[in-house]
Amino acid sequence: MSDTQLTERAINTIRFLAADAVQQAKSGHPGMPMGAASMAYTLWTRHLKFDPGDPKWPDRDRFVLSAGHGSALLYSLLHLSGFDLPLEELRRFRQLGSKTPGHPEFGETPGVETTTGPLGQGFAMGVGMALAAEHLAAQYNRPDYPVVDHTIYGIVSDGDLMEGVASEAASLAGHLRLGRLIYLYDDNHITIDGTTELAFTEDRVKRFKAYGWHVVVVPNGDDVAAIDKALKAAKRDPRPSLIACRTHIGFGLPTKQDKSSAHGEPPGDDELDGAKRNLGWPTEPRFLVPDDVREHFAKATARGRRAHKKWKKLFTGYAQAHGELAAQFKRTQAGDLPAGLAELIPPLPADPKGVATRAASGKALNALAPALPELIGGSADLTPSNQTLIKDGGDYTPEAPGNRYIRFGVREHAMAAMLNGIALHGGLIPYAGTFLVFADYMRPSIRLAALMGQRVIYVFTHDSIGVGEDGPTHQPIEHVASLRAIPNVALLRPADANETNLAWLVALERTSGPTALALTRQALPVYDRQKFASAEGLRKGAYVMGDLGQGAPRVLLMASGSEVELIVQAAEQLSQEGIAVRLVSFPSWELFAAQPESYRSQVLPSTIPARVAVEAGVSMGWDRWVGDGGVIVAIDRFGASGPYKDVYKHLGLTVEAVVAAAKKAMGGK
Amino acid sequence: MSDTQLTERAINTIRFLAADAVQQAKSGHPGMPMGAASMAYTLWTRHLKFDPGDPKWPDRDRFVLSAGHGSALLYSLLHLSGFDLPLEELRRFRQLGSKTPGHPEFGETPGVETTTGPLGQGFAMGVGMALAAEHLAAQYNRPDYPVVDHTIYGIVSDGDLMEGVASEAASLAGHLRLGRLIYLYDDNHITIDGTTELAFTEDRVKRFKAYGWHVVVVPNGDDVAAIDKALKAAKRDPRPSLIACRTHIGFGLPTKQDKSSAHGEPPGDDELDGAKRNLGWPTEPRFLVPDDVREHFAKATARGRRAHKKWKKLFTGYAQAHGELAAQFKRTQAGDLPAGLAELIPPLPADPKGVATRAASGKALNALAPALPELIGGSADLTPSNQTLIKDGGDYTPEAPGNRYIRFGVREHAMAAMLNGIALHGGLIPYAGTFLVFADYMRPSIRLAALMGQRVIYVFTHDSIGVGEDGPTHQPIEHVASLRAIPNVALLRPADANETNLAWLVALERTSGPTALALTRQALPVYDRQKFASAEGLRKGAYVMGDLGQGAPRVLLMASGSEVELIVQAAEQLSQEGIAVRLVSFPSWELFAAQPESYRSQVLPSTIPARVAVEAGVSMGWDRWVGDGGVIVAIDRFGASGPYKDVYKHLGLTVEAVVAAAKKAMGGK
Repeated sequence: MSDTQLTERAINTIRFLAADAVQQAKSGHPGMPMGAASMAYTLWTRHLKFDPGDPKWPDRDRFVLSAGHGSALLYSLLHLSGFDLPLEELRRFRQLGSKTPGHPEFGETPGVETTTGPLGQGFAMGVGMALAAEHLAAQYNRPDYPVVDHTIYGIVSDGDLMEGVASEAASLAGHLRLGRLIYLYDDNHITIDGTTELAFTEDRVKRFKAYGWHVVVVPNGDDVAAIDKALKAAKRDPRPSLIACRTHIGFGLPTKQDKSSAHGEPPGDDELDGAKRNLGWPTEPRFLVPDDVREHFAKATARGRRAHKKWKKLFTGYAQAHGELAAQFKRTQAGDLPAGLAELIPPLPADPKGVATRAASGKALNALAPALPELIGGSADLTPSNQTLIKDGGDYTPEAPGNRYIRFGVREHAMAAMLNGIALHGGLIPYAGTFLVFADYMRPSIRLAALMGQRVIYVFTHDSIGVGEDGPTHQPIEHVASLRAIPNVALLRPADANETNLAWLVALERTSGPTALALTRQALPVYDRQKFASAEGLRKGAYVMGDLGQGAPRVLLMASGSEVELIVQAAEQLSQEGIAVRLVSFPSWELFAAQPESYRSQVLPSTIPARVAVEAGVSMGWDRWVGDGGVIVAIDRFGASGPYKDVYKHLGLTVEAVVAAAKKAMGGK
Repeated sequence: MSDTQLTERAINTIRFLAADAVQQAKSGHPGMPMGAASMAYTLWTRHLKFDPGDPKWPDRDRFVLSAGHGSALLYSLLHLSGFDLPLEELRRFRQLGSKTPGHPEFGETPGVETTTGPLGQGFAMGVGMALAAEHLAAQYNRPDYPVVDHTIYGIVSDGDLMEGVASEAASLAGHLRLGRLIYLYDDNHITIDGTTELAFTEDRVKRFKAYGWHVVVVPNGDDVAAIDKALKAAKRDPRPSLIACRTHIGFGLPTKQDKSSAHGEPPGDDELDGAKRNLGWPTEPRFLVPDDVREHFAKATARGRRAHKKWKKLFTGYAQAHGELAAQFKRTQAGDLPAGLAELIPPLPADPKGVATRAASGKALNALAPALPELIGGSADLTPSNQTLIKDGGDYTPEAPGNRYIRFGVREHAMAAMLNGIALHGGLIPYAGTFLVFADYMRPSIRLAALMGQRVIYVFTHDSIGVGEDGPTHQPIEHVASLRAIPNVALLRPADANETNLAWLVALERTSGPTALALTRQALPVYDRQKFASAEGLRKGAYVMGDLGQGAPRVLLMASGSEVELIVQAAEQLSQEGIAVRLVSFPSWELFAAQPESYRSQVLPSTIPARVAVEAGVSMGWDRWVGDGGVIVAIDRFGASGPYKDVYKHLGLTVEAVVAAAKKAMGGK
């Protein structure tokens, strides 16, 4: 059999494994895998560097299927390439508990580098991975020891290119000249609604050139030689590359090829058999992998195994020549923190005048950064406001990719997606800042960080109506609540500089998901921790700051962040009036809810049903903590423009209001 | 005095009114107004069609300050152009209760067409306005009666052009050839972090050309003649236009011009005086409006007043020649609905097999559409899934702008922003669909719709784990909660086809803010409304569907949407076991919370403390309704890929679980 014939058989194997899986599941997306099989084949067998025996090998190339609905394509490739994904799993495509969920899910399937499906996310995460690869190469490579030398590949779709998050990321990738990024564009002219003529007629090639990308057009997306040539050119080019391949959705399907109907539903048995006949493939058995094809893939895979072996040797030499760097590389790849971080940010003395928690955060960041070479981050053009600058970090630029401060521009969404990509890449801990209100722009990516359990740190400053004059467009109201609503996001809203220090430690230590720090623009007192309990309590999400007044507390006041100042003042007033008060600082619902019931009922004992929660945001959800006897002082409306103290007063967040609420709660109901 | 001198004086008046306002407030953004004053002057005095005596004149041009932080510029223009915005309000810039908030707020200031500030939003809303203008022109204009003939102008910034939402909208504007859209790009090379060299070096001109825009470069952004010429060319061109003007942030400031420090802080008295001296302007008095400048603006304004007068005459003729159209125009401009809508979607009979609420929604939409020519909408490339097609509406295209179905492409964020623009434009009721999980992509624009109180309708289908095989990336979990969290968003999650019909009526009638319909992918029974209470109860947010069993209810079950099926089945089982149950359908917290306490305690009486809430989403917030004695059956984790019935079971949302929860609640605590 000629090479060409074998190639064709290999491509058909990919194509029909995917289509068979969809048909078996009676659910899924056959069109994309059938159309993109040749591109994927060329990339996976001739370029992609991986070792199925160690899917986490740090110097592997990464593959991102941004068009995640084509998951069956990826599962076919993983199976054929020798990953631990038996054919049985392809037969269980889209079934509960299988390793082949409807969209690729990070952590569920060996070799799946990221969760994709929400369009544009994979594209932008790949940009983050490429930045991580460039940065780590600059940080770790030494003459004769290119221990970091890999490429980020992906397949992107029309849908990806239409999404704003991809546009933002593409612009930044061009600006930063991320040459380790190569995307194959599955240019199939079809979307769910119909042809791209309906809504997507811009000149994509010209647009990506305008971003500073290297763009190649492959007129026939089944021309393996042309795709191969384009990939080689892309690897040589110092710019990020887009290889636009004209493909055909549902390639081979007798009536559905080049139609929307090929996109998101099983082809049906007849149509599937027809495609097999069209392409000279046996209609039975389903899930056919001819032996010669399996061997063919094994040969391609052997290339990666050899490369991995070679790399291990290289790294051994590196470890001898550059012991400290090698140890740091291993530590950071494992995601471990160095010892002694807490000592870098020791407890701060009381300071009634105080400091904004965003400023405290900036100080903590800069105290921690020298010990954490893996820390990399930036801001969406709000550096001075977010106080996210690592002062001696230098800006990441094409000329200085070893620097670790990223100027994301006004691109919050791409920033968040790139943080995911950086975290997924491994070896780095990414963080980034913007105003809390703009967390809305980042939300799809925050959700993915939570779903994938990635250690990503958001520095959200200007966290309430404390923003003041900028007014309702810039004053978060529902944002704290809506971040708390996302499973596996830890939202921390520290009450002072000491809690802020602790919040940074918690965020760094939390490897199972993203942490969002909500920080103030305005100064907050640094509480006297001789008088009040240690800020260490933040680790438990909520803690008793103190019981004020004589005897058992008759009322309990709880708040997070800047509103702790209000409850402290109210407690002082109430205790002067002879009413004993419990003060609870409540920086994180997520962490508190994870505590054992015994701790929770110690902080919020049923013996104090009179409870008041205070928050400069919506009341939603506080009922859980205050109970039927409680009163919530909150803001269930949008904010207002004015000096922030006026706004607090205008919206009823005052010491008097808290005192009145406490008395009301004590009155019972 | 020469014309040129007067022009310069007029520009300096704009410039320094704005700068004085910022300095007076000791807060704000002086740089943009100072740099963009010439562009704004040229547009407002030579092109923009408006009548300050009637800021809502339907055929006015619209002006969108997408760079909303430059609000002082807009307030200066409005004051000088004769709008009801006295100098005193400029002196009260950014103070609580003034008409001059930190960012332009729709409804707070006459002449402000939209709220802006969150970058990119204004850009994309303007695209929506332009689409509305084109559509209404096609719908209403008749030979000799061009009653709709206006242009959407805007000023956009680097930040706007970096935001993905603007990229999406720009691509669509080019595709739809929205020639009534003209943006001046304030190309000042400066962002908050520093120069645009830091993060924004793409070729903007080339990018916009790739989108199909007409692009003009004005090398000197203070060259009034060149700007004027470019505006004229833009008006003639059938494509949307971007006029890139090289400007200088903080123009005139001795040490801050062309620096980030000019962006977001008051210049300081000395610096401000220095700028005035540099530009030959008296340092005192502040807020100076020379008489000749005031006259000059009055002359420009007179042009608009005359145009308005002429239009009134035109409309009188139109009303005689095309009475019905004119009446429809008036009705839709007033935002009034025609009578008899409810009759178009009469109650449906019981149907145990049932229908997906997305399908019921599609039917309701198509039943209502013929009576509502003002209804216009689409989907972000999920038309068949969302069932948003108006079947005889035809696609909006450059050739057929009178058609009312919009193919938004995979551009959820721009879609949401464009809905805002369409609603703000007036005369139309916009709606659009996507999967509920992708509401996250739209969130910044949803928030603005709520803040501005715009009638916008979101058709969010696939509203739970009922999505099934597509898995966690496509299964909303926190989305219902996080939409409920936004003030002034009415989230309606109907339980069956009859509630869906009502939900559409509520959404259309609700003129004070956006409504989000959360609809199922899967079929739901159509309840027998002889047995259960009328679906009209949806109007109150929650209602007693029925009390089952003998005697006073001992337990209360509440749910929204698809989970009503679970509580109905659980109630039947419980009542068969001799336990009387109250069933509450709870489609909308927002509507229920707005009911008088008397109604609320009638539905949820304190005499039934044993309450169970069931929802296929996070539990957050349900405590408010179930109280201390309640139990919540919900999903506080991400979903899973599998057939949806398997997923429901896997995540514990079963009739058995609800029955058990009811018994637990009855057991008390």
